[in-house]
Amino acid sequence: MSSNLPQVGITMGDAAGIGPEITVKCLAMPEMRDLCAPVVLGDARVIQAAVDLTGVSMEIRPSKTPEESEPNPGVIDVIDYANVDPSTYEMGVIKASNGDAAVLYTKEAGQMCLDGRLGAMVSAPLNKESMREAGHNYEGQTQILGELCKAERYAMALILGDLRIILLSTHMSLRDAIDKVKKDRVVSYTELAWETLNMIKVPDPTIAVAGLNPHAGEGGLFGTEDIEEIQPAVEECRAKGINVVGPLPPDTVFNRAKEGEFDLVLAMYHDQGLMVVKLLGFGEAVTLLCGLPIIRTSVGHGTAFDIAGQNKAGHMNLFEAIKVAADMAAMKGGSE
Amino acid sequence: MSSNLPQVGITMGDAAGIGPEITVKCLAMPEMRDLCAPVVLGDARVIQAAVDLTGVSMEIRPSKTPEESEPNPGVIDVIDYANVDPSTYEMGVIKASNGDAAVLYTKEAGQMCLDGRLGAMVSAPLNKESMREAGHNYEGQTQILGELCKAERYAMALILGDLRIILLSTHMSLRDAIDKVKKDRVVSYTELAWETLNMIKVPDPTIAVAGLNPHAGEGGLFGTEDIEEIQPAVEECRAKGINVVGPLPPDTVFNRAKEGEFDLVLAMYHDQGLMVVKLLGFGEAVTLLCGLPIIRTSVGHGTAFDIAGQNKAGHMNLFEAIKVAADMAAMKGGSE
Repeated sequence: MSSNLPQVGITMGDAAGIGPEITVKCLAMPEMRDLCAPVVLGDARVIQAAVDLTGVSMEIRPSKTPEESEPNPGVIDVIDYANVDPSTYEMGVIKASNGDAAVLYTKEAGQMCLDGRLGAMVSAPLNKESMREAGHNYEGQTQILGELCKAERYAMALILGDLRIILLSTHMSLRDAIDKVKKDRVVSYTELAWETLNMIKVPDPTIAVAGLNPHAGEGGLFGTEDIEEIQPAVEECRAKGINVVGPLPPDTVFNRAKEGEFDLVLAMYHDQGLMVVKLLGFGEAVTLLCGLPIIRTSVGHGTAFDIAGQNKAGHMNLFEAIKVAADMAAMKGGSE
Repeated sequence: MSSNLPQVGITMGDAAGIGPEITVKCLAMPEMRDLCAPVVLGDARVIQAAVDLTGVSMEIRPSKTPEESEPNPGVIDVIDYANVDPSTYEMGVIKASNGDAAVLYTKEAGQMCLDGRLGAMVSAPLNKESMREAGHNYEGQTQILGELCKAERYAMALILGDLRIILLSTHMSLRDAIDKVKKDRVVSYTELAWETLNMIKVPDPTIAVAGLNPHAGEGGLFGTEDIEEIQPAVEECRAKGINVVGPLPPDTVFNRAKEGEFDLVLAMYHDQGLMVVKLLGFGEAVTLLCGLPIIRTSVGHGTAFDIAGQNKAGHMNLFEAIKVAADMAAMKGGSE
């Protein structure tokens, strides 16, 4: 490729969802040219249909490898797997073959990142039901990539501008989430956060660990987890050279991070992090997969089958995901 | 009194804290004249010292009753209990007699509200340690007023502009807070919220009850409290004619309220509500005591002994508390 911009692979996700249409809308944005050399992993016919649907003035150029692609305004480079025929499915409907194809794009993009042929990858949404219909029992794309990279531990970070949040646990009851607040787990996630900040070359990174209880336990008056689990974990991480503080009062730590005091906050449960994202964010945050040797971001929303194929879906969350991936790939100094 | 503005009593709080200085700074604001007829409950000598400290151009007019006071720019009406001699204490130091005096102001203002002699009361901060040194074992001013009003149930609401939040529980561990998420308690707090909205004459009030677990339990997948406790409570309240919905996903319900969909959100635990306040608020929220037959607001901060007497403390949270109280008293159509 001729550009010095990082090459970013975008997987189009489930063909019957909003992935193809938001992908082409992003690639038609003039801002894209200064950001990265994008290449779509998908089916060229599906991408053409999305161009027709959205009315963007873009030409499709099918290729077989990322090396063939070249940033060119007005052109969408597609690594064409030719595995989804638009005449065989309806928009917004679960179909096993679409799920199977989406899994392949994810695996392919992940392997290209591992091989240094892509600087980063960005995932448009995949439909989990279509994926399961095809016999893939992954929890989601995260697990596909975790297995591909043979990673022992990984986590999702939520990115909202300079505010980065990692969740110690996600989809479980608050009671179960409290049970997950154990020293070893906090150490492990703090290490992951530290590796991630260093991988993307944040200068002098600092991490804050949120407390679990009100006022971070008020010295043990409001619960013991802050003193007995989180504090020893923070001390262990500091002894390992990680620049981390905590547990800090949950109701102010995110403000402090927003104002630049910390580069990342480890949140103790789903809503502690998600409330911040929803209250501060306009729309969705970008998610970053941490703990893998590749840079991968994704959108915060799903396939939106209810509006897929209607040229209604907003594409700015995907644009943000591409921007974060491109910036990180440039900072890491990856494939170019 | 000659004005049609509601008469609002402001208790100066602990003399060694920031209460007196922020009180006089508020009363010197020109905006105050259009808001209410303010009267301070405290010691005239302490208020004079605060005027000298802050350099505001205000004259002190001691009186014995609220009826004697008259809104007059340039004048601070003080109901003078003459019970704190400024030569007997140091700023920022715990002293039993200051705590004892502060308790008296609170009781007096509460009784004047009950008697209809004040339209509302606003509390500057009291120091709990000074109060306890004086032998008063109240949890805080809330309990003093609860006992005075012989109230069986009361709660604090956080007010941030049009966003109102009541907490189902406050200072306890997150595990204990989960144990408090019981149908009867949710019903009782929803009723309190409903009474409050009606007392302050919010037109067609609507209440949202936040869920406890991620996604409000996702139909029972992530915890059972949302289905087994909160949902039946909401149904019982609806049957009683209360306009309430829930349980709603905690990470979006507050945004919906902020945008005007609900007049009040019942939060299931301390940080669920406090994170919203800290993330959306600039500084502190105003707190409103709910469940009593009087209107009483207070500041979200404490006596700030570390900066008391240094003319450093910000007074805008107290101004907001006075504004909220005055607006509510005007809506209720109280004492004037």
